[in-house]
Amino acid sequence: MSTGTAGRRVRGQGRESLLEVAVGEFITRGYDATSMEDLSRAAGITKSSFYHHFASKEALLRAALERALSGLFALLDEPGATAGPALARLRHIVRGQVAVLQGDLPYVTLLLRVRGNTATERWALEQRRAFDGQIAALVREAVEAGEIRAGVEPALAARLLSGLVNSVVEWYRPGRPGAGSLPDDVARAAFEGILPAAG
Amino acid sequence: MSTGTAGRRVRGQGRESLLEVAVGEFITRGYDATSMEDLSRAAGITKSSFYHHFASKEALLRAALERALSGLFALLDEPGATAGPALARLRHIVRGQVAVLQGDLPYVTLLLRVRGNTATERWALEQRRAFDGQIAALVREAVEAGEIRAGVEPALAARLLSGLVNSVVEWYRPGRPGAGSLPDDVARAAFEGILPAAG
Repeated sequence: MSTGTAGRRVRGQGRESLLEVAVGEFITRGYDATSMEDLSRAAGITKSSFYHHFASKEALLRAALERALSGLFALLDEPGATAGPALARLRHIVRGQVAVLQGDLPYVTLLLRVRGNTATERWALEQRRAFDGQIAALVREAVEAGEIRAGVEPALAARLLSGLVNSVVEWYRPGRPGAGSLPDDVARAAFEGILPAAG
Repeated sequence: MSTGTAGRRVRGQGRESLLEVAVGEFITRGYDATSMEDLSRAAGITKSSFYHHFASKEALLRAALERALSGLFALLDEPGATAGPALARLRHIVRGQVAVLQGDLPYVTLLLRVRGNTATERWALEQRRAFDGQIAALVREAVEAGEIRAGVEPALAARLLSGLVNSVVEWYRPGRPGAGSLPDDVARAAFEGILPAAG
């Protein structure tokens, strides 16, 4: 049970499931306050088994943040995000962002909590800024093309859009009723109002 | 300079400015990771001077969170929030929330980061839930009165509304251009859409 190569996969822990455990601990305890000791204990394996899969705590963080970021950036290359009017492309991306958030909730939660104390965190912040920059450029494009009602300030709209979408991590839990329509619901709220007046 | 009662107010630090320093440290370091030692150093006074004003770190947190919460709850008693159609009352409250956030940015930021590890944090979370509950009730009232376009689900709308408003703490910094119109801009985004289609 604990000899030879089996010792590296106690309780069948592969790289993927260790990452999942680590992300859970980072979210609960905070990244800075979590030690490799804490992570090994949570995963039920020895520290050296843990190091076999990930060279350091920061390597775990990097892998987790990469997962969240790759899901988000992949959206920008989808046909719905690259062709057609800017407003329709934005709607496609917003729906996709919510779906990524739903599918990779802990990873996206971690990404949104990053504050920039380590090189990896600063890298992730830069990536987030790059993503938000692409959205902001698309918002400007929609405003300049006259697709958006007059008076909307592009930089503010881009920030509020990002804030609305990202706020979903604060309360969304998988399996709740309404999860399937959430991407469309959030998009409708962003483009038509959270509380649009009747008539 | 350091004798008698003057010793209690080195550098003229009163209760209010110590609270401000503490909130800044809590936000930067995280509440759990901040010691009274850190706070005294940041304020430039001795630990015992600090204890003269606040009995404990948790007392500081409580005072800071009370300030944020009292500003928010006061909104609910304003005439604009208590009389008239539910949708207009909601709009009044949303504008007010943004104004409180602008005026007491560090305090509201701290409130929104609270996770519930201590009795004070759990108390603050309960207060936040009570506040959100009042907003949610008002949203339901507006939906039931037919003031809102059909198809809007009250619980989801209340969550998105709170998420939109609270997301402003992530990027708002006092003194930037556009600060004066921000309450109206956020309200317009919430009720008419962040990116409403033209025409």
